[in-house]
Amino acid sequence: MTEKLSTETRGPLLEPLFASGWEMVEGRDAIKKTFVFDNFVDAFGWMTRVAIWAEKWNHHPEWDNVYKTVNVVLTTHDVGGLSTLDAKLARKMDSLAG
Amino acid sequence: MTEKLSTETRGPLLEPLFASGWEMVEGRDAIKKTFVFDNFVDAFGWMTRVAIWAEKWNHHPEWDNVYKTVNVVLTTHDVGGLSTLDAKLARKMDSLAG
Repeated sequence: MTEKLSTETRGPLLEPLFASGWEMVEGRDAIKKTFVFDNFVDAFGWMTRVAIWAEKWNHHPEWDNVYKTVNVVLTTHDVGGLSTLDAKLARKMDSLAG
Repeated sequence: MTEKLSTETRGPLLEPLFASGWEMVEGRDAIKKTFVFDNFVDAFGWMTRVAIWAEKWNHHPEWDNVYKTVNVVLTTHDVGGLSTLDAKLARKMDSLAG
Protein backbone atom coordinates (compact mmCIF):
# COMPACT_ATOMS: atom_id res chain seq x y z
CA MET A 1 0.00 0.00 0.00
CA THR A 2 1.09 3.52 -0.73
CA GLU A 3 1.45 5.59 2.43
CA LYS A 4 2.05 9.24 3.11
CA LEU A 5 5.74 9.99 3.70
CA SER A 6 6.62 9.77 7.37
CA THR A 7 8.83 12.23 9.17
CA GLU A 8 11.72 9.76 8.89
CA THR A 9 11.40 8.96 5.18
CA ARG A 10 10.59 12.50 4.06
CA GLY A 11 14.06 14.03 4.29
CA PRO A 12 16.08 11.29 2.59
CA LEU A 13 13.58 11.05 -0.26
CA LEU A 14 12.92 14.74 -0.84
CA GLU A 15 16.32 16.34 -0.27
CA PRO A 16 17.86 14.92 -3.47
CA LEU A 17 14.82 16.15 -5.39
CA PHE A 18 15.10 19.65 -3.94
CA ALA A 19 18.75 19.56 -5.04
CA SER A 20 17.65 18.83 -8.60
CA GLY A 21 15.16 21.70 -8.80
CA TRP A 22 11.98 20.35 -7.22
CA GLU A 23 10.21 22.62 -4.72
CA MET A 24 7.34 22.28 -2.29
CA VAL A 25 4.02 23.69 -3.53
CA GLU A 26 2.78 26.43 -1.21
CA GLY A 27 -0.19 25.29 0.83
CA ARG A 28 -0.12 21.66 -0.36
CA ASP A 29 1.86 18.56 0.51
CA ALA A 30 3.05 18.37 -3.09
CA ILE A 31 6.20 19.04 -5.10
CA LYS A 32 6.57 20.98 -8.35
CA LYS A 33 9.13 21.55 -11.06
CA THR A 34 9.26 23.36 -14.39
CA PHE A 35 10.95 21.53 -17.27
CA VAL A 36 12.02 23.59 -20.28
CA PHE A 37 12.98 21.88 -23.52
CA ASP A 38 14.29 23.10 -26.86
CA ASN A 39 10.95 22.98 -28.62
CA PHE A 40 7.46 21.45 -28.58
CA VAL A 41 8.52 18.09 -30.01
CA ASP A 42 11.07 17.64 -27.25
CA ALA A 43 8.62 18.79 -24.57
CA PHE A 44 5.77 16.60 -25.72
CA GLY A 45 8.08 13.69 -26.48
CA TRP A 46 9.25 13.82 -22.87
CA MET A 47 5.65 14.00 -21.66
CA THR A 48 4.85 10.91 -23.71
CA ARG A 49 7.65 8.91 -22.16
CA VAL A 50 6.63 10.09 -18.69
CA ALA A 51 2.98 9.23 -19.45
CA ILE A 52 3.84 5.62 -20.14
CA TRP A 53 5.68 5.26 -16.83
CA ALA A 54 2.91 7.11 -15.01
CA GLU A 55 0.31 4.70 -16.37
CA LYS A 56 2.52 1.68 -15.69
CA TRP A 57 2.86 2.77 -12.06
CA ASN A 58 -0.75 3.99 -11.90
CA HIS A 59 0.49 7.32 -10.59
CA HIS A 60 -0.25 10.37 -12.70
CA PRO A 61 1.07 13.91 -12.60
CA GLU A 62 -0.78 17.19 -12.66
CA TRP A 63 0.92 19.01 -15.51
CA ASP A 64 0.53 21.79 -18.01
CA ASN A 65 2.33 22.49 -21.25
CA VAL A 66 2.82 25.64 -23.28
CA TYR A 67 5.08 25.04 -26.28
CA LYS A 68 8.46 24.01 -24.88
CA THR A 69 7.63 24.36 -21.18
CA VAL A 70 6.05 21.75 -18.90
CA ASN A 71 5.04 22.54 -15.32
CA VAL A 72 4.59 19.48 -13.13
CA VAL A 73 2.97 18.99 -9.72
CA LEU A 74 3.21 15.65 -7.96
CA THR A 75 1.20 14.47 -5.00
CA THR A 76 -0.70 11.31 -4.07
CA HIS A 77 -4.41 12.08 -3.98
CA ASP A 78 -5.23 8.74 -2.31
CA VAL A 79 -3.16 9.54 0.77
CA GLY A 80 -3.66 13.31 0.77
CA GLY A 81 0.00 14.17 0.38
CA LEU A 82 3.40 13.04 -0.77
CA SER A 83 4.20 9.33 -0.96
CA THR A 84 7.14 7.29 -2.19
CA LEU A 85 5.40 7.14 -5.58
CA ASP A 86 5.89 10.88 -6.01
CA ALA A 87 9.60 10.61 -5.32
CA LYS A 88 9.85 7.68 -7.74
CA LEU A 89 8.01 9.51 -10.53
CA ALA A 90 9.99 12.72 -9.90
CA ARG A 91 13.27 10.80 -10.25
CA LYS A 92 12.01 9.17 -13.45
CA MET A 93 11.04 12.57 -14.85
CA ASP A 94 14.50 13.96 -14.10
CA SER A 95 16.12 10.92 -15.62
CA LEU A 96 14.04 11.10 -18.81
CA ALA A 97 14.75 14.81 -19.14
CA GLY A 98 18.47 14.26 -18.58
CA MET B 1 0.06 35.07 -43.05
CA THR B 2 -2.01 34.41 -39.97
CA GLU B 3 -4.14 37.40 -38.99
CA LYS B 4 -6.28 38.21 -36.01
CA LEU B 5 -9.94 37.39 -36.65
CA SER B 6 -11.79 40.36 -38.11
CA THR B 7 -15.25 41.44 -37.00
CA GLU B 8 -16.69 39.75 -40.09
CA THR B 9 -14.92 36.40 -39.79
CA ARG B 10 -15.23 36.13 -36.00
CA GLY B 11 -18.91 35.17 -35.76
CA PRO B 12 -19.04 32.50 -38.46
CA LEU B 13 -15.86 30.84 -37.15
CA LEU B 14 -16.55 31.02 -33.43
CA GLU B 15 -20.30 30.40 -33.20
CA PRO B 16 -20.06 26.71 -34.17
CA LEU B 17 -17.29 26.30 -31.57
CA PHE B 18 -19.37 27.93 -28.84
CA ALA B 19 -22.13 25.50 -29.80
CA SER B 20 -19.75 22.58 -29.20
CA GLY B 21 -18.67 23.74 -25.74
CA TRP B 22 -15.90 26.24 -26.36
CA GLU B 23 -16.04 29.49 -24.39
CA MET B 24 -14.21 32.80 -24.39
CA VAL B 25 -11.50 33.13 -21.74
CA GLU B 26 -12.22 36.06 -19.45
CA GLY B 27 -9.86 38.96 -20.05
CA ARG B 28 -8.14 37.40 -23.08
CA ASP B 29 -8.91 37.04 -26.77
CA ALA B 30 -8.73 33.26 -26.40
CA ILE B 31 -11.06 30.27 -26.27
CA LYS B 32 -11.10 27.40 -23.78
CA LYS B 33 -12.70 23.99 -23.38
CA THR B 34 -12.44 21.11 -20.91
CA PHE B 35 -12.26 17.61 -22.38
CA VAL B 36 -13.04 14.68 -20.08
CA PHE B 37 -12.17 11.14 -21.13
CA ASP B 38 -12.72 7.73 -19.55
CA ASN B 39 -9.21 7.42 -18.16
CA PHE B 40 -5.62 8.63 -18.45
CA VAL B 41 -4.77 6.51 -21.48
CA ASP B 42 -7.67 7.98 -23.42
CA ALA B 43 -6.86 11.53 -22.27
CA PHE B 44 -3.17 11.33 -23.07
CA GLY B 45 -3.81 9.38 -26.27
CA TRP B 46 -6.01 12.23 -27.45
CA MET B 47 -3.35 14.77 -26.45
CA THR B 48 -0.80 12.84 -28.48
CA ARG B 49 -2.94 12.92 -31.61
CA VAL B 50 -3.62 16.63 -31.09
CA ALA B 51 0.11 17.25 -30.51
CA ILE B 52 1.00 15.86 -33.92
CA TRP B 53 -1.52 18.12 -35.67
CA ALA B 54 -0.41 21.08 -33.57
CA GLU B 55 3.20 20.55 -34.59
CA LYS B 56 2.25 19.95 -38.23
CA TRP B 57 0.37 23.28 -38.28
CA ASN B 58 2.97 24.97 -36.05
CA HIS B 59 0.19 26.09 -33.75
CA HIS B 60 0.30 24.82 -30.19
CA PRO B 61 -2.25 24.82 -27.39
CA GLU B 62 -1.90 25.88 -23.79
CA TRP B 63 -3.19 22.82 -21.93
CA ASP B 64 -3.14 21.02 -18.64
CA ASN B 65 -3.93 17.45 -17.75
CA VAL B 66 -4.94 15.78 -14.52
CA TYR B 67 -5.70 12.09 -15.00
CA LYS B 68 -8.68 11.92 -17.39
CA THR B 69 -9.27 15.66 -17.75
CA VAL B 70 -7.62 18.06 -20.21
CA ASN B 71 -8.18 21.82 -20.08
CA VAL B 72 -7.30 23.62 -23.30
CA VAL B 73 -6.78 27.31 -24.09
CA LEU B 74 -6.25 28.43 -27.67
CA THR B 75 -5.00 31.78 -28.89
CA THR B 76 -2.42 32.98 -31.40
CA HIS B 77 0.47 34.63 -29.56
CA ASP B 78 1.94 36.06 -32.78
CA VAL B 79 -1.14 38.17 -33.49
CA GLY B 80 -2.17 38.81 -29.89
CA GLY B 81 -5.54 37.12 -30.15
CA LEU B 82 -7.69 34.59 -31.98
CA SER B 83 -6.88 33.68 -35.57
CA THR B 84 -8.24 31.15 -38.05
CA LEU B 85 -5.59 28.72 -36.76
CA ASP B 86 -7.32 28.59 -33.38
CA ALA B 87 -10.65 27.74 -34.97
CA LYS B 88 -8.94 25.09 -37.11
CA LEU B 89 -7.18 23.47 -34.15
CA ALA B 90 -10.35 23.65 -32.01
CA ARG B 91 -12.31 21.83 -34.71
CA LYS B 92 -9.58 19.20 -34.98
CA MET B 93 -9.61 18.70 -31.20
CA ASP B 94 -13.38 18.21 -31.24
CA SER B 95 -13.12 15.83 -34.14
CA LEU B 96 -10.37 13.75 -32.52
CA ALA B 97 -12.35 13.61 -29.25
CA GLY B 98 -15.50 12.56 -31.09
